[in-house]
Amino acid sequence: MSESQRSESQTQPISLADVEPREPMPGFRGRFVHGQAVTLAFWRISRGSELPEHQHPHEQFVRVERGELELTVGGVTRVLAAGDVWWIAPEVPHSGRAVTDCEVLDVFQPVREDFR
Amino acid sequence: MSESQRSESQTQPISLADVEPREPMPGFRGRFVHGQAVTLAFWRISRGSELPEHQHPHEQFVRVERGELELTVGGVTRVLAAGDVWWIAPEVPHSGRAVTDCEVLDVFQPVREDFR
Repeated sequence: MSESQRSESQTQPISLADVEPREPMPGFRGRFVHGQAVTLAFWRISRGSELPEHQHPHEQFVRVERGELELTVGGVTRVLAAGDVWWIAPEVPHSGRAVTDCEVLDVFQPVREDFR
Repeated sequence: MSESQRSESQTQPISLADVEPREPMPGFRGRFVHGQAVTLAFWRISRGSELPEHQHPHEQFVRVERGELELTVGGVTRVLAAGDVWWIAPEVPHSGRAVTDCEVLDVFQPVREDFR
């Protein structure tokens, strides 16, 4: 989000339905909202979609809002359901797989410049 | 969250139901999860509860997940419903009122030390 968009979002709320979704990985359709040092990524993930292991300098929260998401973080594998939150430290390798169709919110700090 | 709790949350997801709620303002029952530079605050707000105008050095996202929340940010008043997100810049005065019972996620950067 540009400075001008940030300035606008300061005086108006955003409806997520108005944010154009993107699909940076197959099966992962995301809507991104950026602040000064935080990116929110609202994902709809299709059942069976896989996120290959990766890591990044951002701290991250994964919050499952609907469905079930299998995550492996630092070698530990768990299935997250609605109401579960996993905090991932910077540079910790993680991967995932959608057990069902999912709705997931990721919170990244700092901003995910690659999602702008 | 202490360093040890952070370390633990790195290897285990948290179920929000296991996080003890607190009520720092009347009618605002919150569950807080802290990272390195981000605090997530999961609120259940009772209809009619009011948040007096205040400001803080944190940038903040307000995301309504259920119900309707009236917010005034920098003098602009809107009613947010499920799927709406409002970004609040640091030090911008804001206030709120729960039009209905609400579920709201706030994301703060940096950590809200007063919510630890």
